[in-house]
Amino acid sequence: MKLADGLVYGGDYNPEQWPRETWTEDMRLMREAGVNLVTLGVFAWGTVETADGVFDFGWLDEIIGLLHENGIGIDLATPTAAPPSWLHTAHPEILPFDGDLYQQPPGGRNAWCPSSPVFRRYALRIAEQLARRYGEHPALRLWHVGNELGGGNARCYCDVSAAAFRQWLHERHGGVEAVNQAWGTNVWGHRYNHYDEILPPRGKHGAPNPGLFLDYERYSSDALLAHYLAEREVLQRFSDRPVTTNLMVGPGAQVADYARWAPYTDIVANDHYTLVDDPDRAIELACSGDRMRGMTRQREPWLLMEHSTGGPSWQQRNRAKDPGEIARNSLAHVARGSDGAMFFQWRAAATGAEQFHSAMLPHSGTGSRVWREVVELGGMLRSLAEVAGSRVEPARVAMIVDDESGWYLQHGLKPHRGLRYGRELRAWHRALWRRQVLTDLIPVTGVTDGGLDGYDLVLVPGLMLVHDEVAAALAAVPARGGTLLVTYLSGVCDPAGRVRTGGFPGAFRDVLGVFTDEFYPLQAGEEVPLDDGGVVRDWTERVQAVDAGVVVSYTGSSLAGGPAVTRRAYGEGAAWYVSAALPASSIEAITERLVAEAGLPRTVRAPPGLEAVRRIGDDAAYLFLINHRDEPVEVVAEGIDLLTDEKAGPVTVVPAGGVRVVRESSVETPRRAV
Amino acid sequence: MKLADGLVYGGDYNPEQWPRETWTEDMRLMREAGVNLVTLGVFAWGTVETADGVFDFGWLDEIIGLLHENGIGIDLATPTAAPPSWLHTAHPEILPFDGDLYQQPPGGRNAWCPSSPVFRRYALRIAEQLARRYGEHPALRLWHVGNELGGGNARCYCDVSAAAFRQWLHERHGGVEAVNQAWGTNVWGHRYNHYDEILPPRGKHGAPNPGLFLDYERYSSDALLAHYLAEREVLQRFSDRPVTTNLMVGPGAQVADYARWAPYTDIVANDHYTLVDDPDRAIELACSGDRMRGMTRQREPWLLMEHSTGGPSWQQRNRAKDPGEIARNSLAHVARGSDGAMFFQWRAAATGAEQFHSAMLPHSGTGSRVWREVVELGGMLRSLAEVAGSRVEPARVAMIVDDESGWYLQHGLKPHRGLRYGRELRAWHRALWRRQVLTDLIPVTGVTDGGLDGYDLVLVPGLMLVHDEVAAALAAVPARGGTLLVTYLSGVCDPAGRVRTGGFPGAFRDVLGVFTDEFYPLQAGEEVPLDDGGVVRDWTERVQAVDAGVVVSYTGSSLAGGPAVTRRAYGEGAAWYVSAALPASSIEAITERLVAEAGLPRTVRAPPGLEAVRRIGDDAAYLFLINHRDEPVEVVAEGIDLLTDEKAGPVTVVPAGGVRVVRESSVETPRRAV
Amino acid sequence: MKLADGLVYGGDYNPEQWPRETWTEDMRLMREAGVNLVTLGVFAWGTVETADGVFDFGWLDEIIGLLHENGIGIDLATPTAAPPSWLHTAHPEILPFDGDLYQQPPGGRNAWCPSSPVFRRYALRIAEQLARRYGEHPALRLWHVGNELGGGNARCYCDVSAAAFRQWLHERHGGVEAVNQAWGTNVWGHRYNHYDEILPPRGKHGAPNPGLFLDYERYSSDALLAHYLAEREVLQRFSDRPVTTNLMVGPGAQVADYARWAPYTDIVANDHYTLVDDPDRAIELACSGDRMRGMTRQREPWLLMEHSTGGPSWQQRNRAKDPGEIARNSLAHVARGSDGAMFFQWRAAATGAEQFHSAMLPHSGTGSRVWREVVELGGMLRSLAEVAGSRVEPARVAMIVDDESGWYLQHGLKPHRGLRYGRELRAWHRALWRRQVLTDLIPVTGVTDGGLDGYDLVLVPGLMLVHDEVAAALAAVPARGGTLLVTYLSGVCDPAGRVRTGGFPGAFRDVLGVFTDEFYPLQAGEEVPLDDGGVVRDWTERVQAVDAGVVVSYTGSSLAGGPAVTRRAYGEGAAWYVSAALPASSIEAITERLVAEAGLPRTVRAPPGLEAVRRIGDDAAYLFLINHRDEPVEVVAEGIDLLTDEKAGPVTVVPAGGVRVVRESSVETPRRAV
Repeated sequence: MKLADGLVYGGDYNPEQWPRETWTEDMRLMREAGVNLVTLGVFAWGTVETADGVFDFGWLDEIIGLLHENGIGIDLATPTAAPPSWLHTAHPEILPFDGDLYQQPPGGRNAWCPSSPVFRRYALRIAEQLARRYGEHPALRLWHVGNELGGGNARCYCDVSAAAFRQWLHERHGGVEAVNQAWGTNVWGHRYNHYDEILPPRGKHGAPNPGLFLDYERYSSDALLAHYLAEREVLQRFSDRPVTTNLMVGPGAQVADYARWAPYTDIVANDHYTLVDDPDRAIELACSGDRMRGMTRQREPWLLMEHSTGGPSWQQRNRAKDPGEIARNSLAHVARGSDGAMFFQWRAAATGAEQFHSAMLPHSGTGSRVWREVVELGGMLRSLAEVAGSRVEPARVAMIVDDESGWYLQHGLKPHRGLRYGRELRAWHRALWRRQVLTDLIPVTGVTDGGLDGYDLVLVPGLMLVHDEVAAALAAVPARGGTLLVTYLSGVCDPAGRVRTGGFPGAFRDVLGVFTDEFYPLQAGEEVPLDDGGVVRDWTERVQAVDAGVVVSYTGSSLAGGPAVTRRAYGEGAAWYVSAALPASSIEAITERLVAEAGLPRTVRAPPGLEAVRRIGDDAAYLFLINHRDEPVEVVAEGIDLLTDEKAGPVTVVPAGGVRVVRESSVETPRRAV
Repeated sequence: MKLADGLVYGGDYNPEQWPRETWTEDMRLMREAGVNLVTLGVFAWGTVETADGVFDFGWLDEIIGLLHENGIGIDLATPTAAPPSWLHTAHPEILPFDGDLYQQPPGGRNAWCPSSPVFRRYALRIAEQLARRYGEHPALRLWHVGNELGGGNARCYCDVSAAAFRQWLHERHGGVEAVNQAWGTNVWGHRYNHYDEILPPRGKHGAPNPGLFLDYERYSSDALLAHYLAEREVLQRFSDRPVTTNLMVGPGAQVADYARWAPYTDIVANDHYTLVDDPDRAIELACSGDRMRGMTRQREPWLLMEHSTGGPSWQQRNRAKDPGEIARNSLAHVARGSDGAMFFQWRAAATGAEQFHSAMLPHSGTGSRVWREVVELGGMLRSLAEVAGSRVEPARVAMIVDDESGWYLQHGLKPHRGLRYGRELRAWHRALWRRQVLTDLIPVTGVTDGGLDGYDLVLVPGLMLVHDEVAAALAAVPARGGTLLVTYLSGVCDPAGRVRTGGFPGAFRDVLGVFTDEFYPLQAGEEVPLDDGGVVRDWTERVQAVDAGVVVSYTGSSLAGGPAVTRRAYGEGAAWYVSAALPASSIEAITERLVAEAGLPRTVRAPPGLEAVRRIGDDAAYLFLINHRDEPVEVVAEGIDLLTDEKAGPVTVVPAGGVRVVRESSVETPRRAV
Repeated sequence: MKLADGLVYGGDYNPEQWPRETWTEDMRLMREAGVNLVTLGVFAWGTVETADGVFDFGWLDEIIGLLHENGIGIDLATPTAAPPSWLHTAHPEILPFDGDLYQQPPGGRNAWCPSSPVFRRYALRIAEQLARRYGEHPALRLWHVGNELGGGNARCYCDVSAAAFRQWLHERHGGVEAVNQAWGTNVWGHRYNHYDEILPPRGKHGAPNPGLFLDYERYSSDALLAHYLAEREVLQRFSDRPVTTNLMVGPGAQVADYARWAPYTDIVANDHYTLVDDPDRAIELACSGDRMRGMTRQREPWLLMEHSTGGPSWQQRNRAKDPGEIARNSLAHVARGSDGAMFFQWRAAATGAEQFHSAMLPHSGTGSRVWREVVELGGMLRSLAEVAGSRVEPARVAMIVDDESGWYLQHGLKPHRGLRYGRELRAWHRALWRRQVLTDLIPVTGVTDGGLDGYDLVLVPGLMLVHDEVAAALAAVPARGGTLLVTYLSGVCDPAGRVRTGGFPGAFRDVLGVFTDEFYPLQAGEEVPLDDGGVVRDWTERVQAVDAGVVVSYTGSSLAGGPAVTRRAYGEGAAWYVSAALPASSIEAITERLVAEAGLPRTVRAPPGLEAVRRIGDDAAYLFLINHRDEPVEVVAEGIDLLTDEKAGPVTVVPAGGVRVVRESSVETPRRAV
């Protein structure tokens, strides 16, 4: 059973917040908008299980029937994100504790400890009830386990978690002496004799042992995953429908290591919200989409489970979207592999913490601009129905992503405590985006076993922790004629977080042909000029180009004359080291050269801001053209414009702020076997 | 018995901090300064009740006698703001808990939970002891219950408070299902089955249900009021003297809903401290005074119970007052209805947390500028004795004030989390102040039942929560030929905090003839130009002028061409909607037009910064002229200058930084019946 | 036994973090670098006492033997800074509590309550074991008690501490009524009937009674000192070697009142780290060195126990050192009295919280710049061996330093809460440093009993708390023909923190001939111009020059025309009052005049940035010349350049960034008897 005929369109639907007469209006308006899937029941635990073991399915039967009658599919949530008040009253011990052992009060979201056996028992019971009752319902298309797992409970530091952590450590490390070795506990004299001496890294403002910190991050992600798997197992026992959970993935280090979860979902699903004060938020969105695709097995379609029609509620100044931005955002996700676009939420709530969150049907009703654009978007997605199931054209650029490195970089006493993991990742992705060069963001777990085959350019931003095998797989790229580009702080530690001594960048020193003997983090406001005309802030290093050419050099500071960027030639291939936090201008220039040297094709040739991605189906190719500029852009593209069902090309004009999707007459782009 | 002959002058007096020889000097210097009332005993609990149930009235008898002999009246405090150390040691459970359940240690002020029955028992016992002993003392003029109630204990989140809150909810809402409806608890799945599942909105940094938040604010204010009433009841049992408590009221949202308390005081009393880094602090002071007057029943006199002669102690950089500022501040309060001016405190303390707080008699003694100005001010107030009891001339402008709306606006997930409730209120008051147009700040509770009769212009800044009846009373203003001006975010919710759907500004949409479908909060640094030459920051909306004229439009952003300010004509009346956070220049221009169109009289015609307010007694009118400018200002005013006892006018010159009070020969200002 | 032949060179050595093969390499490289002393065992408690009462000395015997064989002396630490995990597990009650009663989790440093009898028992047992075993070892040169006492546990607010505090109060004050008097507890009504009502000043964000705060600071310093003394007593019982502990002293108010500890150490030792974003960090370092010397009895040598070869780990952006900065820093300490230079640490750790801290042997190994400079520095120190034991030339300028005043100034409700104690201290020291005029920073405890004899200029920055006897000793300076300069807020309180009434600056009013009746702290961004062309920020006062001349006046604000700086002539002497936070330009001009009027000699005559200090041995004088400028500087200095063993002078050129040390042919500088 497919999620929908064609692309998915809809959002979270919380009918329990509204009287019956509203339900009738909802059905009519959903049909008007072309909604074909709704996520139901996310917050409905307390209205279904009205008291401990007392179930009231009446209203849920009714709304499910109504949706079914109206031809709307259901993505049914296990409501475990929102434990009922009676459960918190009876078992306050399930509420999570932060690193200062402050226990979160009820009233928020995901207010439960991932390792709590008490919560697990209750969660599986309600999941089983739903699975038994609706598991074979014809309207049911998908199971939605909980909601945004880790949003509110990504880390719990309670004693139950401490015990679970010790068990996890035992399974990972064996005897406690292995832990002492991994963490180097003799530093500061904290070695352990027994597992029961080990505590979570409480005291979140302190400077715990970084190995302890890192393993607690890993344990925490695994604890949440274990909960997901337990719910999934129950659902699968009573239902043959696909199971997923909505991740929360942007370009930075995430609250959980979702890339390691993705294989356990039947369709990878994401909630994505732009940060309203980010001027490059359209590129950030594309980066997120590219990362989602990289989390699938074979670049098959994924699903945008939530985004917004306008201002979210949780940011400081919840900006509305610009005209057309809803469609641009939605279709950018589709272009990058989502088989639809869903929103939080269908109807704006009148109450509750998120009462001012935007929705498909806003407070101001059908007379609003948002509603008009929502109806238009529904029409667009219907026009694009044949795109469903197609895959994004294979990229020839890969960027390696690793949450663990991100956590490590951003935590504790580091050479520069202000560096953010997503910075270099986004900066290099941005330069490629501006050139219409598609990038796959590959989790570090996908690097070995041929995961890099077919990529001509591999970028390694801030991969602080690196296995020897991963380093070897990356070193093989230039050796086989590809191009490898590594940025600063990559490779400096092993996977346990131990510094690789002998010079930086550690695991990559040999392949890059460089030797950094000392880091030179810059102070706030400090600038170091480069011989390419740019200026570096935040990070420099003293590098020796032992066996590499110098591409960019410093012209100021005590590093003047020394290299900032090096390139080691390998026949057709090359290995670059970017030792500085380069300005955009330098990254642009280097990217231009990388694209030229590696012969990377651009999806289309257009000015920056014209986003172009191709999906390839069994019978046709679909070129998505999204114009983020204030003026129309001409693109060489020929075929049928699916949104208008008119002929397009040979030159297609994409209006300012507009979108076109062309079913192409002929596609000559090189394809890579999946 | 009057508080004093003529106007009140004095301050807090804490003789228990000083040896007997100092008392003698105090009497002499108080007489020199013209002090006629002192607030005694605020922090004296532990020196009167030296141990549990052990009382030592000796020293208090002595100082009361001494004051009486010197003709100085007494405002006797129940000392319940400062529980003795022995009480905190015996009953630490009375110390309040914050929203993170962190219990306040002893050592601060008002260190007690308002709902604590234990504290209540002790507080009423000491109050009764004082009432029995001094209730009929000839020097006693006023009872002063506690001190700055809510300063330190405005919110307590302990379990005792939780139980009291549930009781309060039960009385307000009836069954728990009514609470579920009011708060919309199905959102995020937090519905309650029983009252005992309801907790205070603990976790002050989270995003609790806004209905829960709002009711806890209300409960907290009521809990403090209940304590005040309990003490008052004891005092009234043994004494016939008036009873009050010193509120803390500025223009913003206050720590308690003091407007609802005011009817329970025999004279409304306020503590007012300017914020030393506020360049408009003189206007802020006037705004506070106008608000105090609006809290009285019929604009009768109120009392400034505390202000300062110089730097306070609790601000970051405790600026001294400029020359003449003590008199300007004091007489601005008197002009706006205070029957005197009192200070914290008489003699600067040498020890304690506030050891660097200014006082009437500073550390540097009688050789100081402060002392000279204090003595001068005493003389001024004596010259103004006949002003006592007169009432401020009726204003024709009302501004609606509502702490609940302020709390709601400033809390939780809002479209723009940085907006402050007092912002628009102060901005419009400022424009009127600069035109010498008097404004009454009316609590929203005073709007119905004819409370707006006689006002030609009614301003409604940020009234986020609005009852249907209040909305109706405000809608009647333009209908009867008056002018109504409503600013953004007003009317968007009902009193429970539920969004009024169907378009903004909700309850005011019809009367204003507008329809806002979406809010456009601006990002930090973002500016949108207007066609009146101004520039908007922070807040814009997309408005349709459905049945209204457009006064000011946007010329930039995606709203370009759309209205920012609208005006709907109603015969002689008009209804304005200000949908944007206007700059001062736009507010000035609109105010100029409002004043002209409504034919509002200016108290005098003078440049901005000459503050002018008239009080009207049984036999005469008193024109207060306060010059905040650096140069002399000429004003048409004729009569007797009470401060010099010389003839003034027909043109009166007010010196730079100076004050004049003219008993007017003739007053032609229209008066409104009280 | 001397610590070393010649000057000490070395660092913290933690062999327990490394395998045996690394030890062998360490010995070789230590010899290469010229290391002659290492601090051993700081974090070794858990590897020596592997379980409660179970000791394993094997590895320690081995490494001590190895060091001895290689001729390297040992500074053996009692490892009490790092309680083992088994101890924290068995006795979690020893972990310190902060002012909000949040208990520090294990994992940090000095994770123990200074008043805990449980911890004391364990600490003394391990100290005794080490003392018994190694107390007479020929390689043992020094005992190093704990590590950075107070770093992590300077204040504990637990109940054990509370009881110890009450005992301390009893010993200091006698009856509880004396406490009430000292603290002025009648203010805010907090008087105590019994000691058991007194709690520590918990609630660190509140505004406790300042007397309580101050005494708790004193108690806390004393509690740590008591722990040090207890360990020392055990060591002295079994060993005749000198005992010390490494203090942490910069120019500001320190975590403990180390000046009161210094007499109990056999050699005063300091850990000093520059703040990498401080542009004047070289001067700050000099200031710290001058302060260390002032803490010795007779300006005899002290020891720099820790500094860094590059970026530390705990700052925001851990800047590397500039070329030559390691030597400049090290020799600046030696110039100012340190008999050597030690580092944290010998070999960079690969793990643990400080894994990115620089070291003598960095992660990048012997191919690094740091290693080259470390080896060079070792050579320099060998060349300077004869300097060991010499004393710094007597200074003729003294500056009075007092941590208690610093704590008091920076805490609680103050006229200006943003003032930092070290501000004026550093500003005036800087002006003298730029003129090559040496300053002794004298603890306030050293002022009486002739402590100021021989000083021609005495500076008193921010001495907020002052005893009558100290005030008298300072007043004697101008009376005997010297110059006294006092800055704002000095003298305003007595040692209990009670305001000295009658006008400011209190205790110094008479000697300075001034009367301040009111403070005028300035707001952020506010500037007041002076008639010397400068501009004041942050602090002004209204001063009357009762019996003094006016040197600098205000030309703006309401203080215009009033004095900012006054000078009272006393025959040859003078008493200056600096009532404003002067800009550097004003301080430069006044310092120039002070130097001229007092006839103060400059060590050499050179431009600012050429640091020059002379040490004087039994047979020779050693002129240290450190050039912080970017260009060579010529200095009149003649003799032998010890670093090159070549003749220097009559004009010696100090290269840009370079250092010279000249054994002088003749020294005519006036010397003061020690």
